[in-house]
Amino acid sequence: MSAATTTDRDSMDFAKTKALFHLPDGVIYLDGNSLGPLPRSAAARVTKAVTEEWGEMLITGWNKAGWMAQPAALGDRIGRLIGAPNGSVVLGDTLSIKVYQALASALEMRPDRKVILSDSGNFPTDLYMAEGLIRSLAQGHELRVVAPEEVAANINDKVAATMLTEVDYRTGRLHDMVSLTAKAHAAGALAIWDLAHSAGALPVDLTAAKADFAVGCTYKYLNSGPGGPAFIYVAPAHADTVRPALSGWLGHEAPFAFDLDYRPGHGIERMRVGTPPVLQMAALDASMDIWDRADIQAVRLKSIELTELFIELVERDCPGLTLASPRDPANRGSQVSFHFAEGYAAMQALIARGVIGDFRAPDVMRFGFTPLYIDEEDVRGAVRILADVVRNDLWDRPEYKTRARVT
Amino acid sequence: MSAATTTDRDSMDFAKTKALFHLPDGVIYLDGNSLGPLPRSAAARVTKAVTEEWGEMLITGWNKAGWMAQPAALGDRIGRLIGAPNGSVVLGDTLSIKVYQALASALEMRPDRKVILSDSGNFPTDLYMAEGLIRSLAQGHELRVVAPEEVAANINDKVAATMLTEVDYRTGRLHDMVSLTAKAHAAGALAIWDLAHSAGALPVDLTAAKADFAVGCTYKYLNSGPGGPAFIYVAPAHADTVRPALSGWLGHEAPFAFDLDYRPGHGIERMRVGTPPVLQMAALDASMDIWDRADIQAVRLKSIELTELFIELVERDCPGLTLASPRDPANRGSQVSFHFAEGYAAMQALIARGVIGDFRAPDVMRFGFTPLYIDEEDVRGAVRILADVVRNDLWDRPEYKTRARVT
Repeated sequence: MSAATTTDRDSMDFAKTKALFHLPDGVIYLDGNSLGPLPRSAAARVTKAVTEEWGEMLITGWNKAGWMAQPAALGDRIGRLIGAPNGSVVLGDTLSIKVYQALASALEMRPDRKVILSDSGNFPTDLYMAEGLIRSLAQGHELRVVAPEEVAANINDKVAATMLTEVDYRTGRLHDMVSLTAKAHAAGALAIWDLAHSAGALPVDLTAAKADFAVGCTYKYLNSGPGGPAFIYVAPAHADTVRPALSGWLGHEAPFAFDLDYRPGHGIERMRVGTPPVLQMAALDASMDIWDRADIQAVRLKSIELTELFIELVERDCPGLTLASPRDPANRGSQVSFHFAEGYAAMQALIARGVIGDFRAPDVMRFGFTPLYIDEEDVRGAVRILADVVRNDLWDRPEYKTRARVT
Repeated sequence: MSAATTTDRDSMDFAKTKALFHLPDGVIYLDGNSLGPLPRSAAARVTKAVTEEWGEMLITGWNKAGWMAQPAALGDRIGRLIGAPNGSVVLGDTLSIKVYQALASALEMRPDRKVILSDSGNFPTDLYMAEGLIRSLAQGHELRVVAPEEVAANINDKVAATMLTEVDYRTGRLHDMVSLTAKAHAAGALAIWDLAHSAGALPVDLTAAKADFAVGCTYKYLNSGPGGPAFIYVAPAHADTVRPALSGWLGHEAPFAFDLDYRPGHGIERMRVGTPPVLQMAALDASMDIWDRADIQAVRLKSIELTELFIELVERDCPGLTLASPRDPANRGSQVSFHFAEGYAAMQALIARGVIGDFRAPDVMRFGFTPLYIDEEDVRGAVRILADVVRNDLWDRPEYKTRARVT
């Protein structure tokens, strides 16, 4: 046989990648879409940043340890997973801040248009940031929130920008980035994509889709740890003309000249704001060592296998649960959700038994599938326990119904 | 003798606090005003956050390890150093972002006024953030930048807010927070204070000064490590009425309800934006263990002793250096700067010999004095080396004149 040029799932050895993560004993972790687990190498990498870099280099670490260059270097590595060329992605801040940056820039690029078009499947924080920006600008902008399936029909010449999350955080429903971006452009609007549940979950090609802006976080599928920095992509065509609303010193053309006036930096650098979080970046650096060697096409194929198996087994073994995610894997991301009337309590009961997923109101049990460290055995084990919980009403205990939870 | 109720420097044993920090062999570190050194306990504390919390608790760490409550808990601990009551300070983001939040809120509270008054001694990034906000708002605001000594005379009924940094980052010149805030209020303006070079450097009493907003960073005198989170203070009188421009999900009244509409959270919580940086907060937590036991009045008295000694010795032993800082210690923060024509090269020569300070254009050599880990022996040792550098023209080497430096 000749060497295969097409990707298949066998291009990666997932047993080997699984061994690169620390997973607690007795836990089946199906919540990597909220917070990825610890790459084993991250502990030593963070310790190195603390003791050998901060401890020994002190202020000189900004140059000697390369801290100052990390936001762009990490951006390039993430860029490979999302179809973004080198120099078009930079790390920093939180996803909410990056949404604000993208949106403020887009509105300034379309001064005659007043509508931001989004959908009810978007992350609430994206909508909140848009609300805050609109109120602050006081220029008569409107945030128009429609049902996900109504987005295309609502793109018109009043729309300054679409602001959409590719993968619905509740159901995993996948937007068609290529066609919605094309439709936005045809109407003269800009397209902003939130990749929080896409980056590391499935192949994204921002270049091919002609996206104008994209943002995402690194603590979900990219496994950078709690509070890891966010990223922002600006299409190269815009990068030298976009004017940052959050014009911080590290986005300045010459941060260390300490000029009194702001001059935007070159390209994506202008989307930097303040001092980057070195310890969080160290953890992301370790995590990206795994992603650098991963084939995202193979990850996607494996993810589809796992989600298909999970749906099949839950529908066979777990009465009362009905699929909330699209049935066609081509239309969903790397997570599967089920409606279950007692979903909140059932999820607590599951967690108490070592199967960690999460719950989204009103009745959605959500499970993330992350082939780097979740395999078929995990899927079968999780469904066995879930079936036990729902068939035997194990959720029906007061402590499962009342506890507050943060996910 | 009866127990002293007045503070004196002997209320703290600085030899003991010095032992709590890791300082590299052969280094005299006079740049703690740029990046504080590593508290010895921080390495273990960060490792615990990585392995025992992230690694073992995974997503449940937000509750079980208290990550979600940390921004407010750390805020209360910093509050003790700056005269802010519990519940009025919260951690997150970077100082630039916090400046933007304070300023956007203040402008919205004074809709009929269009001037932001600042001074040329402010951090450039504060000015840059104001420029970006003004351009984005497009409501005819003006950033008026005057000389530091002209601020008081320029406060009038056109000013929406003063935006001042208490300690000048170049010279250490100290603004009179009490009188400038009173003057701002008398003119109907709001007062925003940047405490980047104040928190942990000298006693601040935001409550007594009646400041409206204050912001600061934690990686300088508070020793939280590179990229540690910033903080923001909102006066309790405003905290429940201020409307956040950066309205992120963690500032929402019920972040985990995932409502589509934003409702600001209670009090200072509404100034939270996105997911907080857990690993950076762990380092800050360790650093604050030292600050929790510190007497900031004693730190200030010791700091004055050290800076007075440094000035005396430099003026005696280092020809060509002229004092750039106020001579009266009551008018300066915890740093001392000198003009020196060959300051850039001289600072490189100093650093090569283990004395780390920094340089600010055009000719300022800057030295920070941080009694928690710098003592008289350090001061004498630093001046001996500095005197050698300037008396013997040791700075006159090409490699000291050309190297780019980041501080």
